Amino acid sequence: MNGAESLVHTLIDSGVEVCFSNPGTSEMHFVAALDKVAGMRCVLGLFEGVVTGAADGYYRMTDKPAATLLHLGPGLGNGLANLHNARKAKSGIVNIVGDHATYHVEYDAPLTADVEGIARPISGWVKTSKSAKEVAQDGAQAVAAANKYPGQIATLILPANTAWEPSVGPATAIATPATPKAPTDRIEAIADILKSDEPAAIVITGFALRAKALETASKIASVTGVHLYGQTSNARLERGRGRVPLKTIPYPVDAAVDVLSPYKHIISLSAKPPVAFFAYPDKPSGLYAPDCSTHVLAHEYEDCAAALEELAECLNANDATPVIQNASVAAIPATDELNPTTIASTVAHLLPENAIVIDESITCAPAFFDQTSTAAPHDWLQICGGSIGAGFPLATGAAVACPDRKVVALQADGSGMYTLQALWTQSRENLDITTILLSNSAYAILKHELKNVGAVSGTQAGTVALDMMELNRPNLDWVALAKGMGVEAGRATTVSTLATEIQKGLQCEGPYLIEAVF
Amino acid sequence: MNGAESLVHTLIDSGVEVCFSNPGTSEMHFVAALDKVAGMRCVLGLFEGVVTGAADGYYRMTDKPAATLLHLGPGLGNGLANLHNARKAKSGIVNIVGDHATYHVEYDAPLTADVEGIARPISGWVKTSKSAKEVAQDGAQAVAAANKYPGQIATLILPANTAWEPSVGPATAIATPATPKAPTDRIEAIADILKSDEPAAIVITGFALRAKALETASKIASVTGVHLYGQTSNARLERGRGRVPLKTIPYPVDAAVDVLSPYKHIISLSAKPPVAFFAYPDKPSGLYAPDCSTHVLAHEYEDCAAALEELAECLNANDATPVIQNASVAAIPATDELNPTTIASTVAHLLPENAIVIDESITCAPAFFDQTSTAAPHDWLQICGGSIGAGFPLATGAAVACPDRKVVALQADGSGMYTLQALWTQSRENLDITTILLSNSAYAILKHELKNVGAVSGTQAGTVALDMMELNRPNLDWVALAKGMGVEAGRATTVSTLATEIQKGLQCEGPYLIEAVF
Repeated sequence: MNGAESLVHTLIDSGVEVCFSNPGTSEMHFVAALDKVAGMRCVLGLFEGVVTGAADGYYRMTDKPAATLLHLGPGLGNGLANLHNARKAKSGIVNIVGDHATYHVEYDAPLTADVEGIARPISGWVKTSKSAKEVAQDGAQAVAAANKYPGQIATLILPANTAWEPSVGPATAIATPATPKAPTDRIEAIADILKSDEPAAIVITGFALRAKALETASKIASVTGVHLYGQTSNARLERGRGRVPLKTIPYPVDAAVDVLSPYKHIISLSAKPPVAFFAYPDKPSGLYAPDCSTHVLAHEYEDCAAALEELAECLNANDATPVIQNASVAAIPATDELNPTTIASTVAHLLPENAIVIDESITCAPAFFDQTSTAAPHDWLQICGGSIGAGFPLATGAAVACPDRKVVALQADGSGMYTLQALWTQSRENLDITTILLSNSAYAILKHELKNVGAVSGTQAGTVALDMMELNRPNLDWVALAKGMGVEAGRATTVSTLATEIQKGLQCEGPYLIEAVF
Repeated sequence: MNGAESLVHTLIDSGVEVCFSNPGTSEMHFVAALDKVAGMRCVLGLFEGVVTGAADGYYRMTDKPAATLLHLGPGLGNGLANLHNARKAKSGIVNIVGDHATYHVEYDAPLTADVEGIARPISGWVKTSKSAKEVAQDGAQAVAAANKYPGQIATLILPANTAWEPSVGPATAIATPATPKAPTDRIEAIADILKSDEPAAIVITGFALRAKALETASKIASVTGVHLYGQTSNARLERGRGRVPLKTIPYPVDAAVDVLSPYKHIISLSAKPPVAFFAYPDKPSGLYAPDCSTHVLAHEYEDCAAALEELAECLNANDATPVIQNASVAAIPATDELNPTTIASTVAHLLPENAIVIDESITCAPAFFDQTSTAAPHDWLQICGGSIGAGFPLATGAAVACPDRKVVALQADGSGMYTLQALWTQSRENLDITTILLSNSAYAILKHELKNVGAVSGTQAGTVALDMMELNRPNLDWVALAKGMGVEAGRATTVSTLATEIQKGLQCEGPYLIEAVF
């Protein structure tokens, strides 16, 4: 058994079931090993950002790491932006990055690069295997590192000869250690704050955004009056009808400062104290009031659901009644004009039970989040690292993870262009994804930000600057782009055609893209 | 004048005329400054790999650095693979990477990343500006670093507040220092080797592949009998009818070893001693014979054209007659079947005078290089770092650099998918590029390599492995993809339609893509 086979065996024994792949020559033995060892599903992406973003989406829906297969330093480089997003989402991923044979590195062949140097900024764990005899053990460690609560990026660099030389066989899977609990005295101190009359908010992210944990949080809120917020962007939020409704902290600084200004205490649960996405001249970086105290209920490396349970017990909140979303979803709008609000309410109305919603809708996001709050129960997945180009790949990975659920992707056009290659994988794997492509032919968010950052006053932006934010010269034809990659597609310019197209998309079992032009 | 304006002034004063851009919020003051300061052409790319690859192509055709404008760590990450290629091509590029305001970094907002860490593996020079008062001086230094012979990647990280706070005005351009010359005693020693009877070869790359330097090399060859080779991949080679014909070292290890086996001396000119692209079990990493001595005529940081001149003088070769390509180009093939050879000879026959050829044709490359050796004089640009996805962007940058020349891009399908977004920029800027898209619906090179590396014996590859190398499920429709980005396109399945389509492409002044299906 060669090193590659010992590694594939070990990954499978350690619970890794899917490998999102974009291999090259130095990964050929690993690829061949996938044929010899049963149990790993291989999903090909035609660009590495597809592969890494899909692994992120897969983790979010399974709480289990997938492997990626990447080709040397530049292949890892192409995957970096979505690994950054995955890192901020606290997703566990095992990157297998092929490299030159150990003895070949000194020759500085064209593809030679500092792979560890490229890996380090986005990895929690990095190792280059030294020999075929160690690669299986390294693989077991990589999976253990990826599984470390709440999930992290583990990058295992695999010199080609460690794959082709003889191994000592598979390594034993490493058990995931118990997740540390938040200390009881800290939880009691938080309980005391919540018992006081001072206004307080809990800011939640991570695993505490699942339905059961949010019910516990809502019970705590109903006995103490504490307000609950999600982070601005979250890896996965269970919401919709029958679930606890949760506001998130607004993206614009002024709105966020306004929302958080009443609170004397902000308590973080797996989250950081709320901060501005960007700095702006004359605006604060921290979004809470200057006299607000910040506290931690559970650090991101501590079991956040358990901390909520213990806090609820401390506050005798277990028998309280949580707030549950019971309102009816809005009707499809009577007007036929497409705009963010009418698109959002149409999607909300038609959203199927138990859908997975991928939100990379950028400037349309507030309308979608608002309109879908009363939609059928669903999961809401956002970009967590701010690097656009996560949407198509996240949808791909989520659909691989949950073949029995509908994935609905809300995809802005500018960000969609970064990783549009994912559509090909969606077609190849016949993934059940309906994409609503929001075609406003602009980097609309930058038009707002140009003024927000004070780069121009009022509407004084010049032609060069505006030209960098317009995608209408030429217009992108998303129906052609989708069809070019084997994905059926249609265009909607009115609410009624949008509704028809969404129904068409949801009825088919494979991918479908709707270009909503507004 | 704010920091961004002082920087833009300085870049222009230092000779930077083009900025390939994919900006975000933290770059808005830089974008606004481009309106206030005249003299910089802005070219928008919808993905950062387009931007960095275009800057590489621009440098190769102008010997001058362009700027790129990238959005924080992940934006730089998306540009990394083509910066790797540019680094191996020794192209000068000034990356301007926006970052969070200096005081905002500690808040660890979603886009916060180790930008310097991401930059270092692909940059020869990296600096984070500390204040708006220093940013102009830093910009002048960045251009000087990019201009350092033979060209290198300089990355200037621009925290947002160094762009919006008051500056001290533009900095003076820094003069490029003289390029060091190869020492005379070394050149004389090389002359002595060439005067001996022992078989020798000179391996050339870099600026010595321009027509004039190659004539000097050919004169040296005609008086000494030394053989001349280009590296396997080169940034820019001037060749075709009326120029010195030059063979390059084959990519396959066995063929390269065979070619180089006769030589007792290999003399490198801006190149490294020839090494295998990848390591293979039981094949050597060095491609020259074990008893061959390797020598350096000029290191890559030394003036290679001057070294050739001095060597020619040493050998009294100045009056010798160089070998010049005078053979006629082959006719368009009589057969109508498309295959690499018939496609290549059709292209060769129709190649216009003074074209810039971008070669990312991968498995078709040997046929193209062979058939075009007698074509009209042209420049030949290849991927130098082995990271596929350079072709479309290189063509884009070369066309921006040379608006009066035809660019002909030979683009494999698998590699084209990495950076297909470049087609939109080609349309937007109406760039004069005819792309021959080689549609064999496979990562064909990997099918060869799977056997080459011994990952499978004979044709024993399994279904999982082969499935990772097939792009035919679904087939890509490149005509649809091109049209989706505003580029006119046609399909050719026979030699005669290919010839008609190429003529159509060459006749129009903007971009045109031909999907050659074989």
